[in-house]
Amino acid sequence: MARRGWTQEELVTGVLAGDRRALARAISLVEDGEPVGAAVVREVYPRTGRAASIGVTGPPGVGKSSLVSALVGHARALEKRVGVVSVDPSSPFTQGALLGDRIRLADHFLDPEVYIRSMGTRGHLGGLAEATLQALLLVDASGKDVVFLETVGTGQSEVEVIGIADVVLLVLMPGSGDAVQALKAGIMEIPDVIAVNKMDHPAARTMLQEVRSVVALDPVRERRPPILLTEALRGEGVPELWDALEARRAELHARGELDARRDRNLSGEVEVLAVARVRELVRRTMRDDDGVRALVEAVQRREVDPLTAVGAVVDAVTRGGAR
Amino acid sequence: MARRGWTQEELVTGVLAGDRRALARAISLVEDGEPVGAAVVREVYPRTGRAASIGVTGPPGVGKSSLVSALVGHARALEKRVGVVSVDPSSPFTQGALLGDRIRLADHFLDPEVYIRSMGTRGHLGGLAEATLQALLLVDASGKDVVFLETVGTGQSEVEVIGIADVVLLVLMPGSGDAVQALKAGIMEIPDVIAVNKMDHPAARTMLQEVRSVVALDPVRERRPPILLTEALRGEGVPELWDALEARRAELHARGELDARRDRNLSGEVEVLAVARVRELVRRTMRDDDGVRALVEAVQRREVDPLTAVGAVVDAVTRGGAR
Repeated sequence: MARRGWTQEELVTGVLAGDRRALARAISLVEDGEPVGAAVVREVYPRTGRAASIGVTGPPGVGKSSLVSALVGHARALEKRVGVVSVDPSSPFTQGALLGDRIRLADHFLDPEVYIRSMGTRGHLGGLAEATLQALLLVDASGKDVVFLETVGTGQSEVEVIGIADVVLLVLMPGSGDAVQALKAGIMEIPDVIAVNKMDHPAARTMLQEVRSVVALDPVRERRPPILLTEALRGEGVPELWDALEARRAELHARGELDARRDRNLSGEVEVLAVARVRELVRRTMRDDDGVRALVEAVQRREVDPLTAVGAVVDAVTRGGAR
Repeated sequence: MARRGWTQEELVTGVLAGDRRALARAISLVEDGEPVGAAVVREVYPRTGRAASIGVTGPPGVGKSSLVSALVGHARALEKRVGVVSVDPSSPFTQGALLGDRIRLADHFLDPEVYIRSMGTRGHLGGLAEATLQALLLVDASGKDVVFLETVGTGQSEVEVIGIADVVLLVLMPGSGDAVQALKAGIMEIPDVIAVNKMDHPAARTMLQEVRSVVALDPVRERRPPILLTEALRGEGVPELWDALEARRAELHARGELDARRDRNLSGEVEVLAVARVRELVRRTMRDDDGVRALVEAVQRREVDPLTAVGAVVDAVTRGGAR
């Protein structure tokens, strides 16, 4: 089944040995929805869980990729083997996402101990979230010490994608007023660590104070996430940010909370991916099922109410009609 | 089936006659997932489609509710009958949402020609999105000329909820840098009309210019949405905003695009609601299906890979096991 000369065993052996070409091929196979890709993940899964995973989220334009690049540089100076899985749901093709990352992460492309991979949106059943988890597991199995999971945007689907990470870093910048409001309103979850990037901006300290006061308002959690000023392009504040992320993970580990969190994350991920698959089944049913299409047209003529059509779609999906 | 003395026919007759108590009761029934609520919607659906619906979106804290309240006041001065359906997915109880709106929309609570309803998150199958659509249809059927559909946040689920509206108003304020970046990155869709609220803020004109330049960059659409400065609390810019919304709807109607948009919206809404239902079926399966729960525990022990468990969940749902 494996194309271009790789057998399934060769891919498994290669990934576990940290072979970059085997890793790249295996990820391409899961991205394309090829069964052999899933089979490789299945085989290497018992060897995963050794990498520390760091989810990086935040609004577009705050410099997430630059900050990840700076953190990768710092981790390399500490002789860590590093992986980066970058998710760009707005890009229908991997090429677009790759181009951006090539620019931002170019420093690390020649380093054999750094593996960087961008995931764009693909059309197959399960889609981006599924391919992203599989890529993360493959990179983990390949023997990396740290894997960064970066995403654009702060929408629900993006947050879900990085939900698998051990610790979550939220990156903001001066001007991220909407994100601060979302934290305040409880719409955005309080992360493990917050970085206010672009610290040279005149409003950086004001933003720092705003974030600090919002975080201090949280009535539930005793722990306040550390908030750090960074300037990713010059690497300022990056060692401190790395230390804060490490300290947070060590704290979770020492309290026995890391394992509980990983259990929750895995269960949550299974749910997210199952929802992604049934969502795609709904789409296919609406496109391909003649009875459903006729009902939707009747809804548009205001002859049949929308919920009757919804019921018919759900019935068709749960009868397995669309596969 | 109808409690407190309302029969289904009385509810249908009452809603169509514009009776506020019948409308309130019918919406409560759909919120509680009572079958008689859906039955009422089914009966009145052919009488919907007369109201002009205006979706109002934007980041938290920009003053959406105040602006809606000001627009309601303006519409009342023009002798329009007005409905407001306000969606707050972050609030697990309607009470919380109501309290906020009571303060903001209090001016209109005694006006018999204004009907205001807040929708909080409920646990039943289908949930908030479904109840919101039904509430909108009931308010429409009750003879309102205009219905505002307002939501907090700009997440995917919120955008989906207001996707049913004829025209969409995006509200920003000085400090909404994240939203401007999201527009720029193409993560947020360009709306029909944009209001920059809190125009007294020193940075309001800068924000206006930023939004203008981002909107001008759009390579696809020839039409640029009008961008207006408003101060909701004093009502400034509100008549102009109302005119812009009316003009946009009239333009769509004149070009024959309004009907096409409504057809797309209805079909999209059926999809969104079907996805919400199957999502809930996934949750129930993961909670109640013993085989699935055992598999998820094996995933947590790293014995079974996540996608195998995902496949089992989807199989259980599409075999109709969880209902």
